[in-house]
Amino acid sequence: MSRQAKAVVCREWGQPVQVETITVDGPKRGEVTIKVAACGVCHSDHSATTGKIQYPPPLVLGHEAAGVVIEVGDGVTELKEGDYVVSTFITMCGKCRNCVRGRPVLCENARKSLVTLPDGTVRTHGKDGEDLNVFGACGVMAEYATMHVDNCVKIDEGVPMSSAALVGCAVITGVGSVFNTAQLEPGSRAAVFGIGGVGLNVIQGCVTAGAEMVIAVDTNDTKLEMAKEFGATHTINLTQVDDVSKSIKKLSGGVDYAFECVGNGKVVEQAYKALGRAGTVVVVGVADMQDKTTINTFSLPADERTIKGSWLGSARPQYDFPKILNLYKANRLKLDELVTKTYSIDEAPQAFQDMLDGKNARGVIVFE
Amino acid sequence: MSRQAKAVVCREWGQPVQVETITVDGPKRGEVTIKVAACGVCHSDHSATTGKIQYPPPLVLGHEAAGVVIEVGDGVTELKEGDYVVSTFITMCGKCRNCVRGRPVLCENARKSLVTLPDGTVRTHGKDGEDLNVFGACGVMAEYATMHVDNCVKIDEGVPMSSAALVGCAVITGVGSVFNTAQLEPGSRAAVFGIGGVGLNVIQGCVTAGAEMVIAVDTNDTKLEMAKEFGATHTINLTQVDDVSKSIKKLSGGVDYAFECVGNGKVVEQAYKALGRAGTVVVVGVADMQDKTTINTFSLPADERTIKGSWLGSARPQYDFPKILNLYKANRLKLDELVTKTYSIDEAPQAFQDMLDGKNARGVIVFE
Repeated sequence: MSRQAKAVVCREWGQPVQVETITVDGPKRGEVTIKVAACGVCHSDHSATTGKIQYPPPLVLGHEAAGVVIEVGDGVTELKEGDYVVSTFITMCGKCRNCVRGRPVLCENARKSLVTLPDGTVRTHGKDGEDLNVFGACGVMAEYATMHVDNCVKIDEGVPMSSAALVGCAVITGVGSVFNTAQLEPGSRAAVFGIGGVGLNVIQGCVTAGAEMVIAVDTNDTKLEMAKEFGATHTINLTQVDDVSKSIKKLSGGVDYAFECVGNGKVVEQAYKALGRAGTVVVVGVADMQDKTTINTFSLPADERTIKGSWLGSARPQYDFPKILNLYKANRLKLDELVTKTYSIDEAPQAFQDMLDGKNARGVIVFE
Repeated sequence: MSRQAKAVVCREWGQPVQVETITVDGPKRGEVTIKVAACGVCHSDHSATTGKIQYPPPLVLGHEAAGVVIEVGDGVTELKEGDYVVSTFITMCGKCRNCVRGRPVLCENARKSLVTLPDGTVRTHGKDGEDLNVFGACGVMAEYATMHVDNCVKIDEGVPMSSAALVGCAVITGVGSVFNTAQLEPGSRAAVFGIGGVGLNVIQGCVTAGAEMVIAVDTNDTKLEMAKEFGATHTINLTQVDDVSKSIKKLSGGVDYAFECVGNGKVVEQAYKALGRAGTVVVVGVADMQDKTTINTFSLPADERTIKGSWLGSARPQYDFPKILNLYKANRLKLDELVTKTYSIDEAPQAFQDMLDGKNARGVIVFE
């Protein structure tokens, strides 16, 4: 059945988001409709409103949500009405060379369109009946969302929805870069460059994996305070040191892992210079397409250094999301503390503004 | 006892090597004297004669040798007279953080001097009695050499000495970069840039480890022919293609591993561009200290690519050298075929010239 739903929509690149009442069709074969309970507000959502991520408007935003299945399409066996789920925008075939070796973020048959459901159509329409695209095949910044079942991961009940919502993007990107990409060993020394929603999760991923020292680097003292709450053992305000790489080396003797969560070649270079012998830079941040990183060639073999890219924390959603929630329940990962502020859907424009002002670890829109 | 020995000596940077008769003292505590049977001529020896490797002359060259122990100093329990050994210039303490986690090439207590024995003195003297430094604490391009026992690895008898000699440098650097650094999986697709003594060993390392495709890249057709003999499935002459990275991608769909054996940032960049998703560049070549590598930042996370440096094949000499010789005896690695030509010690200057002219996979000086 079709439902009316308030939704956060981008109508034109460069314009503020707006809250509209849209129509959400029921599920077709292989799809489910979710009553969304909570949806994180992510920088990627903002990037889609500026055209940095080139998702064509009109576009229903949102990719980081938790909710309850309320309607199930034909052929869906994995989920039933009443199941709790979190959304995932990783669209994987499950059968290609990369998927079957545990690297679905590199799926070779990734869907051609990331703004429609897999069949190339949408279930979302504006007030004139026009099609509305959906962010990352999700479009979950709305009271209801109809998605392919592969974009949902079933979770246990009992986790606050505003916390569970974050697992699918900020948390997996950060924690996954530590657990999956770096495979950080206990006793390692780490530095984390850029303390946003992702950087905080890198920090706590390092703590959970047994790091001995976690040095947080940012320009913002408020964020560095948050970093300490998430387990950073040391903080460095970039604006207060001459050479951050030297400062890190002085503290640590050179780190085993340096995580770049900014997406900037100059920061990758700082991270590289902060490494000890056998050290690894993990590049988590997504740089502009033309950005360059320049490093000294000799130092690569001479110190056996590594530079390694991490896309979405090298996530395997069906495996990693429940694991993260279990670690949360075991008090080994913080999720509630990531939610700095909640907003009603009508307050969504403010939530975007607060994110751009750097006020929140994560702002979350909660639905009634 | 002291012995007279013909030796290949660098008297001044920029001058050709010369063959001299030197005096080699017997072993002090913890040392052994070797009757050298064969010694490879390596580009690093040449680099020490030009000052690119800043070992001060006068210097006895040679670090890649096999021979027989003929005299044993006090306190040596690991070796006895008559033992066959190959030399290693990896000077590790065996007890630091990096040594004990299996990365002795990154030893934190590496000896301060690489041109003397560990006690800071030498056993080698010129005709006026002056001290002669020794390359890499070895100085084995000589009829006799006295070294610390830690610079020797015991091997089984029965391997031709001219073949065994190469294990300690060219072979371990190439094969080790595949086995130890890359840990290449069977079925991988690989490209190898630069087909010298190291590149050929990377190729055969890939073959032994089960690579499905090995693409050799060089500017010299003779070397590309050698590459085929060592198992390359495809060859590309750089001078005959517009864009080597595109040519490799066309053949392979993008390689899983690209080995850079040249030591040049521009080649690292070509190797990086030849990678498929999840691909790894292994930087084996030793670049000039100021050389730079520039890569696109976005592609690191987007394709989860890795760049990884390999120093001396991440060797663990006491473990890897016997393993390589066992693989040789099992016909899984070629050693004899690496020896393009042998020379008497009096022909050493010609051996250096032939190396510079690119004539040999490896030239080896054999002693009577």
